[in-house]
Amino acid sequence: MSIRIVLVETRHPGNIGAAARAMKNMGLQELHLVRPRSFPDPEASARASGADDLLETAQVHEHLEDAIAACGLVVGSSARQRYLSLNLLEPRECAARIVQASRSGKVAIVFGTERTGLTNAELAHCNLLATIPTDSRYSSLNLAMAVQVFAYELWLAMRPGAPLPAPLEVPLATGVEMTRLYKHIEQVLEQVEFRDRTGGGYLMARIRRLFNRAQVDQNEMNILRGILTAVQSKRRPAGNTVESLPSQDDGMEKSS
Amino acid sequence: MSIRIVLVETRHPGNIGAAARAMKNMGLQELHLVRPRSFPDPEASARASGADDLLETAQVHEHLEDAIAACGLVVGSSARQRYLSLNLLEPRECAARIVQASRSGKVAIVFGTERTGLTNAELAHCNLLATIPTDSRYSSLNLAMAVQVFAYELWLAMRPGAPLPAPLEVPLATGVEMTRLYKHIEQVLEQVEFRDRTGGGYLMARIRRLFNRAQVDQNEMNILRGILTAVQSKRRPAGNTVESLPSQDDGMEKSS
Repeated sequence: MSIRIVLVETRHPGNIGAAARAMKNMGLQELHLVRPRSFPDPEASARASGADDLLETAQVHEHLEDAIAACGLVVGSSARQRYLSLNLLEPRECAARIVQASRSGKVAIVFGTERTGLTNAELAHCNLLATIPTDSRYSSLNLAMAVQVFAYELWLAMRPGAPLPAPLEVPLATGVEMTRLYKHIEQVLEQVEFRDRTGGGYLMARIRRLFNRAQVDQNEMNILRGILTAVQSKRRPAGNTVESLPSQDDGMEKSS
Repeated sequence: MSIRIVLVETRHPGNIGAAARAMKNMGLQELHLVRPRSFPDPEASARASGADDLLETAQVHEHLEDAIAACGLVVGSSARQRYLSLNLLEPRECAARIVQASRSGKVAIVFGTERTGLTNAELAHCNLLATIPTDSRYSSLNLAMAVQVFAYELWLAMRPGAPLPAPLEVPLATGVEMTRLYKHIEQVLEQVEFRDRTGGGYLMARIRRLFNRAQVDQNEMNILRGILTAVQSKRRPAGNTVESLPSQDDGMEKSS
């Protein structure tokens, strides 16, 4: 199993416990928490009922990036339909894709804070956005209930006997690799003195959205990084002075 | 909408509130409570969030029979698989049948008390038994979570744009009519001096289970009641004395 639930800035510890119980009911084990208001907390343990083990092994992170660093597919759960440029799925359709991606890499399903859901910055990390269908007159689902619905759909898609989807031919690039790609792109754009014309500095956000939506696989990642490196090698140095090329950010891997 | 959620002997008022919220999210409005431990209760209201209106209009009953009296289809939610002689469905399959039956009559989905679920006596009122699939290593779903899963599947089956199933040709017999049928059968069995050979007095329970499983419709109900009445009219009086036939239970309708 390589599917994790990531809860971002959860306000009510009871929701963390209830989410853990819902996960365990449906065979999910990996709980990640980003800046929970209070954790561990007796209310979380009480609501977890027999699923305390998931709370004990839950990982707490300061940043969403860390919670999804190893993940090839990041799915954001949102009641709101702001990001229509992302592929907007329902949990059922989504579950099939998640189970498929989980056969060759790690997957995260990310839930935002109770009242307002995922922020734009958090949504920018997601490859897919999923919305639980509800009556539009009253669409605000409780956080743990939303986890339950996703977990239920995942269980139907992955329980023993469920038809096993073919694994992806090439694993998806992980969150860490995507972060490196964006840093690399940013560096190249700077070096070639590309001007942000979006007004308000949204250029990188738009680029991220585009590549996240595309769901870059490992081969494509190598190609993209190779192109960026080639651009850096061949660019005409700024001004008239001949200078050595700046070395790459040390966090980056060489790609050929 | 003619689908109601019936919660029997709920121990935690918070679960009633959370169930109401889950219902409202998915377009369900009718909440019925049988012997709730505490209702109304501030914890129920707190967990209901914006769904207080469902709590305000919730009907409280002393007996399950009253909560399902008007219903043609009664579905029991159970984690346990004791009653394999009932049609055991999953919520998805079940939702299609519920929506179909709701087009020509009322439907109840019944949830038992938190720890132990529906009793055998309560299950005996159900036409169908539905089980939410879970990881068998940890299968005890929170009550409100179970309501959420059913409500979610119902919403998918009945939301605007969902394919509308054909209504049943003949509406199902209601709970009140089934109760009358069983009384009538019991009366006839007594009159014809049929001996209960099940050992332990399970005869009527077995008969109920059979007819509940069959999902008797209104036409069939008329036929069954007609047969019972005919039996009563033509039976040879017990012993050798000629006596007038006992009049029917006054709660019963004449059927032709």
